[in-house]
Amino acid sequence: MTPVSSKLFNRKDKASVDTLRLLAADMVEKAKSGHPGFPLGAAPMAYVLWTRFLKHDPTCPDWPDRDRFVLSAGHGSALLYAFLCLSGYGLTIEDLKNFRQWGSRTPGHPELGVTPGVEATTGPLGHGLAMGVGLALAERHLAARFNRPKFTLFDHHTYALVSDGDLMEGVGSEAASLAGNQGLGKLIYLYDSNDMTIEGHAGLTFSEDVRVRFTAYNWHVSVVADGEDLLSVKMALEAAKQETDRPTLIICRTKLGAGSPKEDTPGAHGEPLGPEALAATKAHYGFEGKEPFFVDERVTKNFLELGRAHAATRQKWEETLAAYGRQYPDEAAELNRRLSSRLPDSFEKKLFSSAKAAFPPQTPVATRVASGKVLNLLAKDLPELIGGSADLAPSNKTLIDGEDFASALSPDGRNFHFGVREQGMGAILNGLSLHGGFIPFGGTFLVFSDFLRPAIRLSALMSRKVIYVLTHDSVGVGEDGPTHQPVEHLAALRAMPNLTVLRPADAIETAAAWALAVSRSSPSALILSRQNLPILDPEKYPQVTEGAAKGAYVLSEAEGQAPEAIILASGSEVPLALAAQALLKGKRPVRVVSIPSFELFNEQSPDYRETVLPAKISKRLSLEAGRSLGWDRYVGPQGKILSIDTFGHSAPANVIFEKLGFTPENVARLVESLFS
Amino acid sequence: MTPVSSKLFNRKDKASVDTLRLLAADMVEKAKSGHPGFPLGAAPMAYVLWTRFLKHDPTCPDWPDRDRFVLSAGHGSALLYAFLCLSGYGLTIEDLKNFRQWGSRTPGHPELGVTPGVEATTGPLGHGLAMGVGLALAERHLAARFNRPKFTLFDHHTYALVSDGDLMEGVGSEAASLAGNQGLGKLIYLYDSNDMTIEGHAGLTFSEDVRVRFTAYNWHVSVVADGEDLLSVKMALEAAKQETDRPTLIICRTKLGAGSPKEDTPGAHGEPLGPEALAATKAHYGFEGKEPFFVDERVTKNFLELGRAHAATRQKWEETLAAYGRQYPDEAAELNRRLSSRLPDSFEKKLFSSAKAAFPPQTPVATRVASGKVLNLLAKDLPELIGGSADLAPSNKTLIDGEDFASALSPDGRNFHFGVREQGMGAILNGLSLHGGFIPFGGTFLVFSDFLRPAIRLSALMSRKVIYVLTHDSVGVGEDGPTHQPVEHLAALRAMPNLTVLRPADAIETAAAWALAVSRSSPSALILSRQNLPILDPEKYPQVTEGAAKGAYVLSEAEGQAPEAIILASGSEVPLALAAQALLKGKRPVRVVSIPSFELFNEQSPDYRETVLPAKISKRLSLEAGRSLGWDRYVGPQGKILSIDTFGHSAPANVIFEKLGFTPENVARLVESLFS
Repeated sequence: MTPVSSKLFNRKDKASVDTLRLLAADMVEKAKSGHPGFPLGAAPMAYVLWTRFLKHDPTCPDWPDRDRFVLSAGHGSALLYAFLCLSGYGLTIEDLKNFRQWGSRTPGHPELGVTPGVEATTGPLGHGLAMGVGLALAERHLAARFNRPKFTLFDHHTYALVSDGDLMEGVGSEAASLAGNQGLGKLIYLYDSNDMTIEGHAGLTFSEDVRVRFTAYNWHVSVVADGEDLLSVKMALEAAKQETDRPTLIICRTKLGAGSPKEDTPGAHGEPLGPEALAATKAHYGFEGKEPFFVDERVTKNFLELGRAHAATRQKWEETLAAYGRQYPDEAAELNRRLSSRLPDSFEKKLFSSAKAAFPPQTPVATRVASGKVLNLLAKDLPELIGGSADLAPSNKTLIDGEDFASALSPDGRNFHFGVREQGMGAILNGLSLHGGFIPFGGTFLVFSDFLRPAIRLSALMSRKVIYVLTHDSVGVGEDGPTHQPVEHLAALRAMPNLTVLRPADAIETAAAWALAVSRSSPSALILSRQNLPILDPEKYPQVTEGAAKGAYVLSEAEGQAPEAIILASGSEVPLALAAQALLKGKRPVRVVSIPSFELFNEQSPDYRETVLPAKISKRLSLEAGRSLGWDRYVGPQGKILSIDTFGHSAPANVIFEKLGFTPENVARLVESLFS
Repeated sequence: MTPVSSKLFNRKDKASVDTLRLLAADMVEKAKSGHPGFPLGAAPMAYVLWTRFLKHDPTCPDWPDRDRFVLSAGHGSALLYAFLCLSGYGLTIEDLKNFRQWGSRTPGHPELGVTPGVEATTGPLGHGLAMGVGLALAERHLAARFNRPKFTLFDHHTYALVSDGDLMEGVGSEAASLAGNQGLGKLIYLYDSNDMTIEGHAGLTFSEDVRVRFTAYNWHVSVVADGEDLLSVKMALEAAKQETDRPTLIICRTKLGAGSPKEDTPGAHGEPLGPEALAATKAHYGFEGKEPFFVDERVTKNFLELGRAHAATRQKWEETLAAYGRQYPDEAAELNRRLSSRLPDSFEKKLFSSAKAAFPPQTPVATRVASGKVLNLLAKDLPELIGGSADLAPSNKTLIDGEDFASALSPDGRNFHFGVREQGMGAILNGLSLHGGFIPFGGTFLVFSDFLRPAIRLSALMSRKVIYVLTHDSVGVGEDGPTHQPVEHLAALRAMPNLTVLRPADAIETAAAWALAVSRSSPSALILSRQNLPILDPEKYPQVTEGAAKGAYVLSEAEGQAPEAIILASGSEVPLALAAQALLKGKRPVRVVSIPSFELFNEQSPDYRETVLPAKISKRLSLEAGRSLGWDRYVGPQGKILSIDTFGHSAPANVIFEKLGFTPENVARLVESLFS
């Protein structure tokens, strides 16, 4: 082996870096699919970070005080898998050979829950960068909340590897601005600045001065002129750790596909190198003639040793935790409960009883207002509830009373000013959830859930318990007009797999919706009215809480005789259904079904569903102030749908509802028409 | 009237500014709804811009060479309406009194097509800022394409009024970065920096240095320390016009709700001042005792005079155009055609005949590849087609061959490098369309249409002919896995009102889809496969082109006897339907219906729909590699749906399809099950 410059540390390190690169290239080659360019260029900086800085213990990937690492450039997954394999995370060379195959532990992009050591599902650019901000906020909060003199339970960094695309995406800008505002000193990002995108040189479209931009955000920015220079990377990371008041961006100049014949060309990005170029690349790194997936023994040993570097620290941490448990048993129990995602005993019973008192039947209340009250009732028992709004807290009612806003000066604040940055908020909520110890929530208008969608999708894909509080849920918004009136959003959210959409009809259903949202192990969207809605009097409708948990239930049965028609409604249209039922009393025996959640109802047994919607009653009318898409399943071909299938209107809400036929009289007429 | 500082120009100007402010406040007060804070603070800068710079002619709001003005802070609509009323756009005081009422010309946020002089629908923050970038790119392109020595047909500026929220939203960052990269010297934005958001002081969450950030983007940035100082605003705008190589951001420090008792508080933002505070505000501006909607005669005269300032310029422009028509008749005819949104005669016939030649029946081709070829066939005859991709051009096949990429050096380039900025791209496409003279298109992966949604919604709300090219349309993406595999996106896009979603089954349907997309007066989404699909041989299936235009049609009838079952399929699942039909031949008489577009099919007459899906055939199976939501309408309660209702998988595409039951054998089995 040729001598190695001191900037490459030593021969062992150089061989280790090159092994990472070539394992990744081999994986892509064997899968006939993937991205070799990023691993080839970013391996050196990743190696320095992972082996000299990252506090982790491969034998305990869920150690709560580990440093978090996010591969925001998710297409570089092969590099991460190579590292996880070599460091002792239990990933085998066989796993690497199964890269991108059905059921493998090495999917195309990193997926949470599939591979030990993967902290976040990444691939949609910008989101890894933004989730990292949530991870860092989580660490800061838990440290402030649980650390005690001589008991440092939380003191870790959040690292990420980000790419040009992460910095171009708006969600990255939003999160970076907020990270600077929050002064997240333990957030350290390595930027693989290879100046190359899929369409060519980044400068063709991305000529901004990233260094200056991040300085404007209040980041500490440094530049490593040669990303191959391990020593420079190390020094930059050391300086980053010294900087405790600002997040750090280390701009590392690299070459896409470094060392391959395709170096510095877009062709190196997203397809296998091909046998010839791969061979040439191996030759370049001194691996000529080696079989695919070759790992030198010294390299194996090096990674395992370095992987064990923090085992003692972890052991010591466990001892600290045990001692902490003796000295602060309540805090320890609470921390343990939060980290294991257990809810406090009987919180639900308590909540429902408080809600009953909080919402007297005679006082109508908007479900957004009810949501704010329920949140505050819950927040007392669930300190893991933290969140805020994208600058609409007064409207979304997302404020936890008596708690601070999170900032460098109040790190344990449970309220967040996310700013007018919906997508960034969603990604940060995902990060808070990924860290563990939190049930994060975030609010905006339902119409702006469009801005949130990429984040909601990641919540759903990763099965994170994130609660989206989406208020102003229909043309009931009124005067602000069609830009602010959701019409298609309920249907669009219901289209998302693994997301529970809950549109409560009143304050009591709102309490049930929150109880469900904090109990499920996946994300929920609470869809809430701007306008006041009457309370479903628990005396008259004792089944509401239990019924809502089943997604749909018989709210009001036809009087006197068997029902001949069914009105199904959700949210603010449930009172309308009841009013129409009253109008039809004595004429048509009508059942009213409240259906706050399609997803929950679809989860019920066929028997239960048949009791709510008996097949023999084909005269059905659905009411929802939104698009009809998706309702056919419940009303059937003999039924009718009262919906809003065009954009909204600027006018007082009651005028709009009347013009669009959302009146008891029109609903009664529509029911009558089912009989003709 | 008290004397007025020279910085406020003169008493006439001061009175005019204050009239704008108070008209806006009166509008909000009368509507009992709206945003008085922004108009009160931003009126001075808006006044200077509108009356001393904006090249416009109220008698001809669609003059092609007018300056464009976008109120990105759409919640300030009252200010804009007050100006349009006073300047002679035909808006009356009565219209102002009808602010935010049903059917009025003064809706809550500016809406394109509702109010003369409104250039864009705004309200979703960041999008006005980003659409302005599209408007400026449009001007630069048309100037390069049509201006001739001594004939300057296009030479106008694009202005916008932007707010804190516009600068916080990621889409604004994306567009600003691109505007700097493009060196858009005729783009000039006034930033109403009032340091106040709904949740409180902007600094609570937005402490970045905007001046430095925009400098990093290659913008020319200036600061007006006092936004009430008309002279400083004027000087800053003059300097901005001098700067021809970079866009300009003028940071004007203002006070939210200036002059009202709520000045500088969040309470001034989004609700009426209330009678007392309004009276106090009027007193502050010397309007005590004036009736609501008071306009002094001198003010009326002043605005009308200033509004006429460019009438002669416009007249001269018309003469130039006429002379241009004599000297360059072909260019003039072409320009006229483009500006009036007329398509070239018989382009469709030509396209279909070329497509037939381009796609021989024996050669399967991915619909994304077909789309690229069709785009290039069309682009020859439709020079108004311009666009690109969010850094995925090689995959989306969005490149127009033989044309330059737009830049400061090739201003008439028809290709765009949008960068990894989907939402910014969408907003810029909207801006290009709003300008007139273009049919813009933009590509990304279907899964990333989530990032585009806010822009698509505005395309639909404004009825702009924007074409979204969304490729890699299912788990057929293969190895990249669930982050890159759309599942819910077809349903979510179909939920959007006024958007035509087209999922062609082969290259011939792809040609039909493009022909429809350029012909409709609203946006379309083309949903295209990554994988190759067989050609529907025109000899065997001559009805494809005409059928696709109806949204759904009988592609392959049951042989020999009347059909007893129907398989409906879209896109890549159509060949699967045909294969299953073949397997069932002689056993079950099955009709295959291709349904490329729900929207188009729903537009057809009931009679036509009955011919395709006769009520008496209730044995129906739908095939689509996406969520089932929305299919019930077509398959009915006796039917079945083969869908994908969970997230995808990282594996070769054929493996995924097989595992999920998308095989001819399984489809045939499902059809059989309808008979049992």
